[in-house]
Amino acid sequence: MDTSPFTPGAPRDEPAEFSRSELGLANRNSGALLELLDADITPTGTHYLLNHFDVPLIDAGTHALEFTGAFDAPFRLSMAEIMALPAITRPVTLECAGNGRAGMDPRPVSMPWLHEAVGTSEWTGTPLAPLIERARPRASVQDLAFIGADEGFDKGVPHPFGRSLTPQELAELDVMLVWGMNGAPLLPQHGAPLRLIVPGWYGMASVKWLTRVEALEHRYHGFQQVRTYRFRQHEDDAGVPVTRIHVRALMKPPGVPDWFTRARWLRPGRVRLSGRAWSGGGVPIARVEVLLDGAWREATLRPRADTYAWTGWHIDWDATPGAHDLACRATDAEGNTQPLEPPHNLGGFANTAVQRVPVHVADA
Amino acid sequence: MDTSPFTPGAPRDEPAEFSRSELGLANRNSGALLELLDADITPTGTHYLLNHFDVPLIDAGTHALEFTGAFDAPFRLSMAEIMALPAITRPVTLECAGNGRAGMDPRPVSMPWLHEAVGTSEWTGTPLAPLIERARPRASVQDLAFIGADEGFDKGVPHPFGRSLTPQELAELDVMLVWGMNGAPLLPQHGAPLRLIVPGWYGMASVKWLTRVEALEHRYHGFQQVRTYRFRQHEDDAGVPVTRIHVRALMKPPGVPDWFTRARWLRPGRVRLSGRAWSGGGVPIARVEVLLDGAWREATLRPRADTYAWTGWHIDWDATPGAHDLACRATDAEGNTQPLEPPHNLGGFANTAVQRVPVHVADA
Repeated sequence: MDTSPFTPGAPRDEPAEFSRSELGLANRNSGALLELLDADITPTGTHYLLNHFDVPLIDAGTHALEFTGAFDAPFRLSMAEIMALPAITRPVTLECAGNGRAGMDPRPVSMPWLHEAVGTSEWTGTPLAPLIERARPRASVQDLAFIGADEGFDKGVPHPFGRSLTPQELAELDVMLVWGMNGAPLLPQHGAPLRLIVPGWYGMASVKWLTRVEALEHRYHGFQQVRTYRFRQHEDDAGVPVTRIHVRALMKPPGVPDWFTRARWLRPGRVRLSGRAWSGGGVPIARVEVLLDGAWREATLRPRADTYAWTGWHIDWDATPGAHDLACRATDAEGNTQPLEPPHNLGGFANTAVQRVPVHVADA
Repeated sequence: MDTSPFTPGAPRDEPAEFSRSELGLANRNSGALLELLDADITPTGTHYLLNHFDVPLIDAGTHALEFTGAFDAPFRLSMAEIMALPAITRPVTLECAGNGRAGMDPRPVSMPWLHEAVGTSEWTGTPLAPLIERARPRASVQDLAFIGADEGFDKGVPHPFGRSLTPQELAELDVMLVWGMNGAPLLPQHGAPLRLIVPGWYGMASVKWLTRVEALEHRYHGFQQVRTYRFRQHEDDAGVPVTRIHVRALMKPPGVPDWFTRARWLRPGRVRLSGRAWSGGGVPIARVEVLLDGAWREATLRPRADTYAWTGWHIDWDATPGAHDLACRATDAEGNTQPLEPPHNLGGFANTAVQRVPVHVADA
């Protein structure tokens, strides 16, 4: 077995790039395991996590969701009342808006995701829209704010995690109130006992540990709505809100890894490369291309399980001895695709630059 | 509310310390969430993970465990046969031998844990010893090797993950063959469908995705037994094997965090500080001390749930405005305790230097 070219370089020669605070976030906020991309549903406990503040442990027996503010018929519901509502279960692919951030140059300082902030779970809950309707928002309502139980500081500003959607956005999105995940109760770190799922949008919209829905007759000015999660080019740029997921493909790295660098080693011959692709807003994937021996070749797609679930793809490759740089790129039905080089914005959002997978193929 | 002294400094001023490979490991290998230390059982999906190679997805319907080598009555068992054996469930605290590595100076280059590589789950399985007995190891057997289905490279050497225990160690340890975790089937990333649990030892001994138990008439020379997981002071040092967990205490950080630095902010007044302490080999915790306003004060201990489960502790503190550096330190019944400053060894193992928790208490 030819392994000598695979002997990894001395890791100490790698430059130091990341601070201790970034590492602390990376140790807390776990990413998906790319080798599990063949699973339609991300195994429980390996779905990515991005939690701004501490995970609260909430007693479902006493938890209530309050519909408050500019509603003509405000009410509150216990978990038992919520779970007695008509239930639906659907697979939804969620992704962190910061996925890919660590690939930007210069790198915005925040949770330094490489590629792994994505996952697909089967979420069980009830559609939110009928509950909003039942609370009878006044015609003057401009925003519906969703407030979580988690709180802390960002840039010196104390706040609970909160996000909003306009009545128009709510009408267009299939927002769910969720209490179950993969056939089991929602886990604390995923928002137990109750969270929002906003399919097709980046994860920041899917507020966890949901305590309150507040109808506002003005726009919501919560920190997480106006100070972060915006595409901004410079400090004076008001920016554009981060909303829908951008199109992306990921490859399950072939072969076996080096423990430290995760570089890949495989035997020569035919190998099936596979992975996932997804886009935002329920837009289907039109095409996945894989860079093989210098040429982009089109992969075979499998039908997705549901409107907001990722699409599986595969392609066979005749691997020849030596070093190869693989890559994959998705295009959605609206013609959106991925750049070859990272874009840049101050918050480090939506870097969908194509994933590169260097592999070493052994001699025959 | 006094928050101004809490405004975190510009994160960009922090020095870069960690390489991209270290970050990749931190994003894959998730740590416990210290704010959940009040939970006796670590919530599913937040138990720490340290996987050397790719997580394999194994079909439990066809998986078998083979007892092979220098046994007089070798056999193999299907998962159905294993799960029909007498079952026990017990809480066991597991910790990665590399926990605390990122606190060493100079820092050994590997998975850069801060403090969070620990967790307690309820493991369901069957004692291993009766199965070894049934296979009738020859008197000449020196080692029992446990081989997982995961494989890859480390320092250029290809190998499956494997570890061994001597017959003597096996007789002294309560080793379990495990298929369940927290009342549910074992998850893929925790070793499904079958793993070892070696209570009281660091996690490297608890081989996941177990496929083979091999009786050897010589010592086992697997990479993970002889090349890593040894306390070594210099490159020519043969070193001492890493085995039992060393005593440690962790505190649930009080108050609320800054998103980025995880620095803590709390209101003045009485606050209950709490956390966990544990040691190796089933040795009980004798004492937990907490550094409060410059003095070490003894915390109240709660009885542990089982011999190998961690011990809860708490202490009340009258928090006064300003900056405080909290810390905690455990001592076990054999008199082992934690150093104030990190030790050093080449692999970065068992850094149990006390956890420091800087907090800012607001003005009244």
